[in-house]
Amino acid sequence: MSPKITTELLKQLRQVMKSSKYVQEPVQAYIVPSGDAHQSEYIAPCDCRRAFISGFDGSAGTAIITEQHAAMWTDGRYFLQAAHQMDNNWTLMKMGLKDTPAQEDWLVSVLPEGSKVGVDPFIIPTDQWKRMSKALRSAGHDLVPVKENLIDTIWTDCPQRPCKPLITLNLSYTGVSWRDKIVALRSKMAERKVLWFVVTALDEVAWLFNLRGSDVEYNPVFFAYAVIGMNTIRLFIDGDRMMDPAVREHLKLDSTLEPEFKIQVMPYGSILSELQAVGAGLSPKEKVWLSDKASYALTEAIPKAYRYLTPYTPICTAKAVKNASETEGMRRAHIKDAVALCELFNWLEKEVPKGTVTEIMAADKAEEFRSQQKDFVELSFATISSTGPNGAIIHYKPVPETNRTLSVNEIYLLDSGAQYKDGTTDVTRTMHFGTPSAYEKECFTYVLKGHIAVSAAIFPNGTKGHLLDSFARSALWDCGLDYLHGTGHGVGSFLNVHEGPCGISYKTFADEPLEAGMIVSDEPGYYEDGSFGIRIENVVLVIPAETKYNFKNRGSLTFEPLTLVPIQTKMIDANLLTQKECNWVNDYHQKCREVIGAELERQGRHEALRWLIRETEPLVRVQ
Amino acid sequence: MSPKITTELLKQLRQVMKSSKYVQEPVQAYIVPSGDAHQSEYIAPCDCRRAFISGFDGSAGTAIITEQHAAMWTDGRYFLQAAHQMDNNWTLMKMGLKDTPAQEDWLVSVLPEGSKVGVDPFIIPTDQWKRMSKALRSAGHDLVPVKENLIDTIWTDCPQRPCKPLITLNLSYTGVSWRDKIVALRSKMAERKVLWFVVTALDEVAWLFNLRGSDVEYNPVFFAYAVIGMNTIRLFIDGDRMMDPAVREHLKLDSTLEPEFKIQVMPYGSILSELQAVGAGLSPKEKVWLSDKASYALTEAIPKAYRYLTPYTPICTAKAVKNASETEGMRRAHIKDAVALCELFNWLEKEVPKGTVTEIMAADKAEEFRSQQKDFVELSFATISSTGPNGAIIHYKPVPETNRTLSVNEIYLLDSGAQYKDGTTDVTRTMHFGTPSAYEKECFTYVLKGHIAVSAAIFPNGTKGHLLDSFARSALWDCGLDYLHGTGHGVGSFLNVHEGPCGISYKTFADEPLEAGMIVSDEPGYYEDGSFGIRIENVVLVIPAETKYNFKNRGSLTFEPLTLVPIQTKMIDANLLTQKECNWVNDYHQKCREVIGAELERQGRHEALRWLIRETEPLVRVQ
Repeated sequence: MSPKITTELLKQLRQVMKSSKYVQEPVQAYIVPSGDAHQSEYIAPCDCRRAFISGFDGSAGTAIITEQHAAMWTDGRYFLQAAHQMDNNWTLMKMGLKDTPAQEDWLVSVLPEGSKVGVDPFIIPTDQWKRMSKALRSAGHDLVPVKENLIDTIWTDCPQRPCKPLITLNLSYTGVSWRDKIVALRSKMAERKVLWFVVTALDEVAWLFNLRGSDVEYNPVFFAYAVIGMNTIRLFIDGDRMMDPAVREHLKLDSTLEPEFKIQVMPYGSILSELQAVGAGLSPKEKVWLSDKASYALTEAIPKAYRYLTPYTPICTAKAVKNASETEGMRRAHIKDAVALCELFNWLEKEVPKGTVTEIMAADKAEEFRSQQKDFVELSFATISSTGPNGAIIHYKPVPETNRTLSVNEIYLLDSGAQYKDGTTDVTRTMHFGTPSAYEKECFTYVLKGHIAVSAAIFPNGTKGHLLDSFARSALWDCGLDYLHGTGHGVGSFLNVHEGPCGISYKTFADEPLEAGMIVSDEPGYYEDGSFGIRIENVVLVIPAETKYNFKNRGSLTFEPLTLVPIQTKMIDANLLTQKECNWVNDYHQKCREVIGAELERQGRHEALRWLIRETEPLVRVQ
Repeated sequence: MSPKITTELLKQLRQVMKSSKYVQEPVQAYIVPSGDAHQSEYIAPCDCRRAFISGFDGSAGTAIITEQHAAMWTDGRYFLQAAHQMDNNWTLMKMGLKDTPAQEDWLVSVLPEGSKVGVDPFIIPTDQWKRMSKALRSAGHDLVPVKENLIDTIWTDCPQRPCKPLITLNLSYTGVSWRDKIVALRSKMAERKVLWFVVTALDEVAWLFNLRGSDVEYNPVFFAYAVIGMNTIRLFIDGDRMMDPAVREHLKLDSTLEPEFKIQVMPYGSILSELQAVGAGLSPKEKVWLSDKASYALTEAIPKAYRYLTPYTPICTAKAVKNASETEGMRRAHIKDAVALCELFNWLEKEVPKGTVTEIMAADKAEEFRSQQKDFVELSFATISSTGPNGAIIHYKPVPETNRTLSVNEIYLLDSGAQYKDGTTDVTRTMHFGTPSAYEKECFTYVLKGHIAVSAAIFPNGTKGHLLDSFARSALWDCGLDYLHGTGHGVGSFLNVHEGPCGISYKTFADEPLEAGMIVSDEPGYYEDGSFGIRIENVVLVIPAETKYNFKNRGSLTFEPLTLVPIQTKMIDANLLTQKECNWVNDYHQKCREVIGAELERQGRHEALRWLIRETEPLVRVQ
């Protein structure tokens, strides 16, 4: 990796920061956040503005450019990468280190008195705008919205915004029609006494209309907004995608419908003016509901007194609870995914000893096996295929410079998943293709105990996921080990592999309570820098549990694993397990054998079936 | 209980709300919070203004009086009591119920446009002022500070503010001189670049100067403020307490000291004007540190740009970590406390079958035994002495109307503690003086498992207590049982029995990380409405733990019980315990027998010693 030379670009940017063509008054600093206008986790090439101006293309980072300085804030995952990708014009601000100033503190320290700090109001989430604006104002500066994105003005070869065809999902996939989702949404709106709801997150638009797209990688979404009134539906979307007869039929664009279900299709770019018109027409006590993470531009379109902002939207909350069709789809997707992984691990077992398989090859092979399965669409995130010391880099993705060859002497960690038309998968298995050391087995077994502690946990209805996080750590803690990431995240149904509002992490207090039908990951780990990484991840479904006393009728919950891929018994020190934990592993493997075995048989994959049967032999404690 | 007749009082209050003698402009509503000017948990009779105006004397509640209405907000613990104590002039606002409006929402719904809402700025914490003021302003009303407390103007027989003699604590109790505490505080102030620190919480003043008092019940504190500068110390305190030669000597009031350690004693009431003078003399970048829970009156005295507000003060944080002298004192206090409880339980075992012991008698007897111990000062909170169904009322305190007789057919729960000059105790034991049912034993054993899970937990240095809360619930959850309170609170050293900034609760995310030397309670429970209550509480000390891998040198922590009172083995179903849990109980009882046995022997309390030996026989699992 050689750094991007940015001298000329920065010079141009500093010119437009002063140009009356773009800014009413010159701005002394310009903020370039990571995200797109929808606060997406994965962004399209045309939205990679921070990477364009700096060269640093990690998934998280904020650039701030002043007359004199160019600074980049990013977190520990990216210190090395950012340092390699950026030239000397840039100062790396290592977030999480004690001496690193916050963006606002740094700005206050370098700006001349009474400065203006510009930002594209479409890119900055409202909650961040508020925080930054308050901090700057209290130091005598001003945060100002710059309508035209200043990076775009100098980005001459900026790629087009993608505008790919849509996929329509029928009831057998979604369980609920878009019409019924609108009805349910309006009833939530009525409860909160709001008249309008603005859909800004891409996965929320996709979910609401039972449509999918491929405008960004990994997330099957498309660029669009929606504004739902009590009697109107407006969908803001570009291109000829609405010309597709299947889409027209799906959305009933050409049918005679009750007016409140008639969808008005409008250009993507007209959202702001339409929302301003909505805002201008409001009477007292009429409210508009937006996510507090919606862009500042959209929030600003509604006068302050009329805004109703919440951290989680009603769509976010409804989307998290999967219905029977979605759950069945997720089950099917996980069965297919397990078939692909049985094939992969069987293949690796034969090939690794030859010393010819690299991390990238293994990742490609995993994708190849997955793509053979019905309704496969794409991967659900960049495959983490890592062996030996690379396994200790939690967000590792193999590239030619780091690509390592798998061997019988190192632990291999594969964290991967796919989008199928019926569901989204995300699974991590840690394997050894030779003989693991006693220490490696010991660590693996503690991680497994944590995985089981969460998976088998029973808890009252209404419990928030963060209260389960310590269960995953207890066995590791007893020996003085820990891992520095959360234990689980929500998983979408043929949607984003990371979704809110639930999860299992010590880092948040703001997650919504778990309910039956929610789907999360369970993925404790252990990482030994420079040596190996271990993680065991299943996607699990929240289900009602049977308990003796049932929490005075409050109801009991537990988890059912949807992922059915063997956990390598070679890595387990069975004598560190309790009998209950040992039974859990054996029951889990019995289920893998039955369910995945039947599918391997049906698909005629006999060699992988033999591998599965071998890998699901019951554990025995010797004691 | 018959309700207090408040018609005349409310009439008088509504008159002063309009009287230009007390308010610049009439206020349309007046808020009467629960607390005193120091946000104390226990308040002096002269501060019980809410009880005076309404009749309701529970520990939590806020009254708001308008021209037309009088409303009282309180929580589930007090719905019944408040309903009994208040007359028809009052509307009870049941907090926590779905339809109960928040105070600000209710005000907005009943007030005429552009109203003024008054409150005593000395009584309302700054964070609450901010919230209420913002909500009212956004609805077109104003929250205004009313300098003279309007309740006091109509409370003709208001008791005097207490002004009791002080106790000086020497180094053998405190471990650190007040002078060294001032040095450490100034170094924290320098770190944060603040020039002044205002001590507003009574236990913080007491801790800083190594003084104790008895101005309020249960908490050994005295009414005072302090303002610490880099070169000055001002103590605001009333009465002739500073005439006491022991106090003068302790504070070196008559000695020649370096000027920065010279204490200026000033009247309690002069804090505001002195602070205003400090505020007026500040230059840019000079900051004053206050708790964000300090009264609005004091915060307001400092211009906004000069305020440095934090949820936890440096004294709160320093006070939480006990030094060796304090820890040893706490150990001694807990040994004496255990002696008293062995006497009590031995006495109860003989007396309860006679049917003559009531809850109040048992509580009195506990106090009698405690008062026989060296350095006993007072109780540390109102004794919860509850039998049968009363045990299910979590904050129960026996009064003549509810006083129940202990019997061999009901579970008895005693939650009690004392202030000794060397430490503070808080212990709960749940006993049966006949034969417990299998269900009672089952529930007790799950609670015990939870108690052990926390007490024996090992966790990395820097872990927040709230991450341990679920450990206390796991065994209960497995059977569909739970309890609706936190698991533990910080405990002071001959100071408040409840103190921050650490604790073990699912309810907060803002607790500070646990460190060695902190002392908290471990008190899971289970409550069956109308039948019984179970709670097992020890005070435990955070200590370094030995672990195999020690968290990559981050360090390991665990707890050591300071409370050494037998846990009734009759209530334990040993077959529900793991061998490890069984060993924990036996080791704990062995330690009780050794440590408390020796002290009982020394005190010549032979009958109680025999009781102790009987109650600490090892458990055996039958399986």
